[in-house]
Amino acid sequence: MIKLFTNSEQIITCNTQGRNYKRGSELKNLDVINNHFIVVENGTIKDILPNSSLNKFVTTEKINLKDKIILPGLIDCHTHTAFAGSRANEFKDRISGKSYEDIAKAGGGIITTVNAVRNSSIEKLVEIMKPRIREYIMQGVTTLEIKSGYGLDFENEIKLLHAIKIVNEIFPIDIVSTFLGAHTFPPEFKLNRSGYIDIIVDKMIPHIAKNKLADFCDGFCELTAFNADEIDKIFFTASNAGLKLKLHTEQFNNIGGLDVALKYNATSVDHLEVLQNNDLSKFKELETVAVLLPGVSLFLDYQFAPAQKLIGHNAIVALATDYNPGSSNILNLHLIMSLAALKMKMKVEEIINAVTINAAKALNRERLVGSIEIGKKADFAVFDANEYSEIIYNVGRNLLSHTIKNGEVIFRKD
Amino acid sequence: MIKLFTNSEQIITCNTQGRNYKRGSELKNLDVINNHFIVVENGTIKDILPNSSLNKFVTTEKINLKDKIILPGLIDCHTHTAFAGSRANEFKDRISGKSYEDIAKAGGGIITTVNAVRNSSIEKLVEIMKPRIREYIMQGVTTLEIKSGYGLDFENEIKLLHAIKIVNEIFPIDIVSTFLGAHTFPPEFKLNRSGYIDIIVDKMIPHIAKNKLADFCDGFCELTAFNADEIDKIFFTASNAGLKLKLHTEQFNNIGGLDVALKYNATSVDHLEVLQNNDLSKFKELETVAVLLPGVSLFLDYQFAPAQKLIGHNAIVALATDYNPGSSNILNLHLIMSLAALKMKMKVEEIINAVTINAAKALNRERLVGSIEIGKKADFAVFDANEYSEIIYNVGRNLLSHTIKNGEVIFRKD
Repeated sequence: MIKLFTNSEQIITCNTQGRNYKRGSELKNLDVINNHFIVVENGTIKDILPNSSLNKFVTTEKINLKDKIILPGLIDCHTHTAFAGSRANEFKDRISGKSYEDIAKAGGGIITTVNAVRNSSIEKLVEIMKPRIREYIMQGVTTLEIKSGYGLDFENEIKLLHAIKIVNEIFPIDIVSTFLGAHTFPPEFKLNRSGYIDIIVDKMIPHIAKNKLADFCDGFCELTAFNADEIDKIFFTASNAGLKLKLHTEQFNNIGGLDVALKYNATSVDHLEVLQNNDLSKFKELETVAVLLPGVSLFLDYQFAPAQKLIGHNAIVALATDYNPGSSNILNLHLIMSLAALKMKMKVEEIINAVTINAAKALNRERLVGSIEIGKKADFAVFDANEYSEIIYNVGRNLLSHTIKNGEVIFRKD
Repeated sequence: MIKLFTNSEQIITCNTQGRNYKRGSELKNLDVINNHFIVVENGTIKDILPNSSLNKFVTTEKINLKDKIILPGLIDCHTHTAFAGSRANEFKDRISGKSYEDIAKAGGGIITTVNAVRNSSIEKLVEIMKPRIREYIMQGVTTLEIKSGYGLDFENEIKLLHAIKIVNEIFPIDIVSTFLGAHTFPPEFKLNRSGYIDIIVDKMIPHIAKNKLADFCDGFCELTAFNADEIDKIFFTASNAGLKLKLHTEQFNNIGGLDVALKYNATSVDHLEVLQNNDLSKFKELETVAVLLPGVSLFLDYQFAPAQKLIGHNAIVALATDYNPGSSNILNLHLIMSLAALKMKMKVEEIINAVTINAAKALNRERLVGSIEIGKKADFAVFDANEYSEIIYNVGRNLLSHTIKNGEVIFRKD
């Protein structure tokens, strides 16, 4: 089945001529095409042709995107969407002056959500996630990563991964699943850290790998969570089991997480708010993506990751919401894009590449999605805007017009 | 016609026992009512009764708000919604390091918008405003202030005020009109400041007052705009003509604006990002509202107004978007509420009072709207939330369920 997406004002391709990511100064290029239409066959981009050849397709189905801006479908490559409960009370405590780390040390924080998840059935978790995923779709998100990490025991981590699998089947967008058993230590293992790591290594990872319950294994390398040696053990096992790797690291402290992640060729290192200057050069030729999360910095009123320095050191930079109830309760990828401009001084073009092709790279999906190129999935985020910078300049406003996944219009405004 | 609004989880009244504003520590009180329903007659709140008396109203029309949170209709008391054109290019310049003041000095900034407005017909201005006002309504805004200030000559200022009058007639919400001829000097009077002030004083203000084209006269007291003596002249005339007063002041510099505003008993002083500590005590018993605009601070990456200090000094504090294309392109009052929590450390309760009863006070409408009290207009913002802090804690997400104006449901989600 052939379909044409016609009449748009601009097509922002994010084309990389086959390399499928952008590093350093390449992030400034968007590869914008005017006066062309997109030919889609069976959900895949077959061609991008000049409007002059439109007359060859007289009887073909046309989706008229007059005056609109077509971007590759947006990708949120770091989220904790699979949570239950609310942490509004903790939010109020933080406004009154308590720090995120203090709350975690006092037994609040992630553990509050763990208790809510453990008390939720798999059906309940799916129901909780549904409106959130609808909201992502209304923003033009066509690929979404979701982590476990609020179960923290075998049964509850597996439950979360199954719930994520179910929403992936229910919704037309691609949901990428990440196992985050190493999010923090569960209360019952506070005094027996190695006991919990044994469960992750001996029981959870083999089961998850065998049953293909996750694409990635992730961890949180931080003083209040796992140290570098503990992450090393987990990554050794996960890597051997065939899982790709990600790591939450350099958020509050530098305790060796970055080097462990790089030792295992992690697909991405995420956070990096306190990344040291002398670590910047490590990103120079690295294929590991630096995933930056400005929503956390806004939400915790904390420093922002050094986006411009990373780009200056030739890193592959991506952006994500880190949507979660404690440190970034921001289910809004457009707002994250605006924050990257306003607070990290990323250029509009850099930001768009960071939530498309580089976010695809952070999910190991860069050969399938993330740019408008022949052979890739026909995933588009279509906006009502005169030009692409309007999407970022209109802070807190959703200019999305259509979300298109595998060539199907899965959301249309009004 | 009697109607009942029933079954809500909470009614946040923002009741002030008739005083109609909250200052200092009073901002912490919301006056929440549970297990009650609201009786509305002919668009006005007639009673708030316990659920046990619901059986007296068997045949009365009921709007079922089960599990929802009812707030007074939200009020955005400082906006420049009546603008044409885009300043996305200037936004890009700012990301690259140019300051807002540098852009203004180089002839960009407000003047860019003035040119676009002068080139727009009144019909075009109305068309441009329509989707913006719809978006406000979808956020639960039932009273909206809009300023002129992008015309900067007699004909174009009048044109803007007429366009604002027309949208007020088209839409069911209340739109309050403010004359801001003293926004900046038009290019043709750059070298003849007193010439422009003469036009404001001799021509614009008398015409506007006579034809009731605006409720307020506003100005911008700043190094790049009007000095305190110039504002004094304008306020003298406006005040005598019967217009209420507002002033943009203490945004970048302290040049005497605050004292001029207080001399004329201005209804509000807006911005206050650089308010001096020794000016704080002036707010102690003042009925002038301090309108804070955290969106500007985010958008310009600039310091935030001292909200906690003002509240500590017993001020009447309100919050608004300052929606405008140059310094706060943020058409999202909920996001402003979240920013007030995250960046100004305002408590959730203080924020809700600041966009309801105190915002009404900033528009001189506090006897009509701003709280859920017998005799006031039945204006409600109804949210899908377990409790009111969720509205602010869910950053960048719109939890609004119904907007009710004069007892009519004017917007309903899905």
